Amino acid sequence: MRLLHTGDWHIGRQLNNNGINLLEDQKFIFHEMVKLAQKEQVDGVLIAGDLYDRGLPSVDAVQVFNQIINEFLFEAGLPVYAISGNHDSSRRLSFGQEFFRRQQFFLATDLKDAFEPIETADTQIFLLPFIDPIDARIYYKDEEPESLKDIHQAVSRIVKDMTARFNPQKAHLLVTHFAVAKSGDEAALRSQMLSETLRTVGGLTSLNSSIFADFDYVALGHIHTHHASPSENVVYSGSPLIFNKDEAKRKDRKGVYIIDISPDAVSKKFVELPVYRDFLVLEEHFDRLTAKEFYEAYPRQKARFAFDILTKSRQELEGINVRAKLEDIYGSEIIDISIHSREESSRITQSQKRQERLTASEEEIIESFYKEMTDGEAMTAYQKDAVTDILSQLKEK
Amino acid sequence: MRLLHTGDWHIGRQLNNNGINLLEDQKFIFHEMVKLAQKEQVDGVLIAGDLYDRGLPSVDAVQVFNQIINEFLFEAGLPVYAISGNHDSSRRLSFGQEFFRRQQFFLATDLKDAFEPIETADTQIFLLPFIDPIDARIYYKDEEPESLKDIHQAVSRIVKDMTARFNPQKAHLLVTHFAVAKSGDEAALRSQMLSETLRTVGGLTSLNSSIFADFDYVALGHIHTHHASPSENVVYSGSPLIFNKDEAKRKDRKGVYIIDISPDAVSKKFVELPVYRDFLVLEEHFDRLTAKEFYEAYPRQKARFAFDILTKSRQELEGINVRAKLEDIYGSEIIDISIHSREESSRITQSQKRQERLTASEEEIIESFYKEMTDGEAMTAYQKDAVTDILSQLKEK
Repeated sequence: MRLLHTGDWHIGRQLNNNGINLLEDQKFIFHEMVKLAQKEQVDGVLIAGDLYDRGLPSVDAVQVFNQIINEFLFEAGLPVYAISGNHDSSRRLSFGQEFFRRQQFFLATDLKDAFEPIETADTQIFLLPFIDPIDARIYYKDEEPESLKDIHQAVSRIVKDMTARFNPQKAHLLVTHFAVAKSGDEAALRSQMLSETLRTVGGLTSLNSSIFADFDYVALGHIHTHHASPSENVVYSGSPLIFNKDEAKRKDRKGVYIIDISPDAVSKKFVELPVYRDFLVLEEHFDRLTAKEFYEAYPRQKARFAFDILTKSRQELEGINVRAKLEDIYGSEIIDISIHSREESSRITQSQKRQERLTASEEEIIESFYKEMTDGEAMTAYQKDAVTDILSQLKEK
Repeated sequence: MRLLHTGDWHIGRQLNNNGINLLEDQKFIFHEMVKLAQKEQVDGVLIAGDLYDRGLPSVDAVQVFNQIINEFLFEAGLPVYAISGNHDSSRRLSFGQEFFRRQQFFLATDLKDAFEPIETADTQIFLLPFIDPIDARIYYKDEEPESLKDIHQAVSRIVKDMTARFNPQKAHLLVTHFAVAKSGDEAALRSQMLSETLRTVGGLTSLNSSIFADFDYVALGHIHTHHASPSENVVYSGSPLIFNKDEAKRKDRKGVYIIDISPDAVSKKFVELPVYRDFLVLEEHFDRLTAKEFYEAYPRQKARFAFDILTKSRQELEGINVRAKLEDIYGSEIIDISIHSREESSRITQSQKRQERLTASEEEIIESFYKEMTDGEAMTAYQKDAVTDILSQLKEK
């Protein structure tokens, strides 16, 4: 069968978390997704968690989700296989589940849902929502709690019980929502990047992809870029649109996977989605940014912008209303303006470093710590994403 | 056809609004309602609004509603015709509506839903959710806004458009959620009880029951006692359980209506529901309340209690830990203790009255004002209920 794999919708999310509503962008992108699903003639849609950005979504976010689900089910006639992620309130989402299930919208929000695969002609689709080890300890109440103390032990046990239901005549597909690492990255994460405390908060310790070896395809959610996929068959679709400046700067390509799965073979292709409104990050000197021959090349008034302004010294921009000038040229949706002084960064002292740490973002602190510990190695995109994700979740608590 | 008419479920409400959770009571009563519906062999269930107590119900409340709706639909196989009330968030409730509708759970949350009756073999069921006049002005955007400025004008217009869809071969039933008064009560309400400001807040002005004359039966929600029903065919079911001390004191009988409706005739009967846990209000002198031969007659430790303690003078209870003594005898779920001094009330002065008003509840202030204005006439149960309702809604804003 052919399936569309998406995830990390985060309906209701704000761009760069700074108040700019993405609902219009999200409506557009979901509608494009429905069109793509129809064009690719898929048999169903997998949504790998984090449907909403918050456990308690706004009424507007609820209406957008309602509309897209109606489009998939009743206009395109496509079954939807979805799970709750760590950003969702699983108990809130579970309302109406029985009505949904009877009409081919399979929404798993509870660990117990993981053990009843949906049977299609040639594939068993298992839906494992995001869980915390405590959920596994509650579910397996008869077991020794000692054997389920971290997420690795919990998911191992769950996978064992899922494989016990495998029909050997069929392909086996899992939709789930965790941080899953390639072996190398995982080791890096574990030993260097994060303290023991951070690693165990909220079940965020990453799993090794080998834990899912028995499945033919694992449709993952949690990390927002498909480049973070730990293996050929254990795959992140990434989020369908850009959520912040870092992603925009990396020019992250957003899209979905189209998967062909059968008992004999699995193949996939990444299909980019169109963009409702571009988000461009320009790293330049201020006089370039404001020079006509430079800015005329950009779709001003149409795109959103962020600026990393390079300066030779702190004094260079004194007396200039940088934001007003940039808004005049690039329009009013300027997401972020950062000023980088080359002079300062070249003669940084330890005490300045300490001072910087006080004003730096947590991401920057972790990045610079990583650099120090690895003799100047930069964090990979995957690692940065994991950090951003973990921090945003810690802030939510 | 035969229908069960209920309403004002207020799932998640607290007893006397003081922290005592009623969810267990509510689960019990809903389950009894399903049994009753099956025993009476009804063809469907009408829920006349205020499904939840709050626009943003707790996850526990959501789960209770999910469970009861599943029981009606999938266990008893009964269609459910429901509307949102003023306590509900109509936009939040609307998620999944299309899935529900396709499986005989008709949930109207928007004015536009009112004009598409559900057609059964012999009856048209119209669902008009609670609305504010502003909703009507938005819906009829082409009309003169002046003609839809209060709820009476708005509902008149809506009823006109509903009757335009009447099939004369069928019976016509409406489920809705407003304060609807008998003519006499309405006049009293309008002229004496409430200020113009109060009356128009949140669309709470009451309608005259004659507005619904074209319908064979109007299943109302909003007022919590079936005694408030404005006419034979315009009927409040009341809430299915007691929510506060005033209702308990009146020994309000809670239940549902069973309606038989056909194009030729309508008949109804009120069926009481059993009570999960009694709520008894005892009005007595303290020495009686604590006398064995008195209290042994009551189901102590099983029921919940509130006390109106009569005293001859303020000094009578000095040095006694009244609550501790009553808890020893009657158990720990004592909802309210009020002390009424006979001596004081017999020689009350104007200045004491003013003082009392400062400490009295809003309900008490309105009651005493009503008494003054009518030369000592007491408010009817219906009037008291309307006041309680209006005040609780004002407090929510």
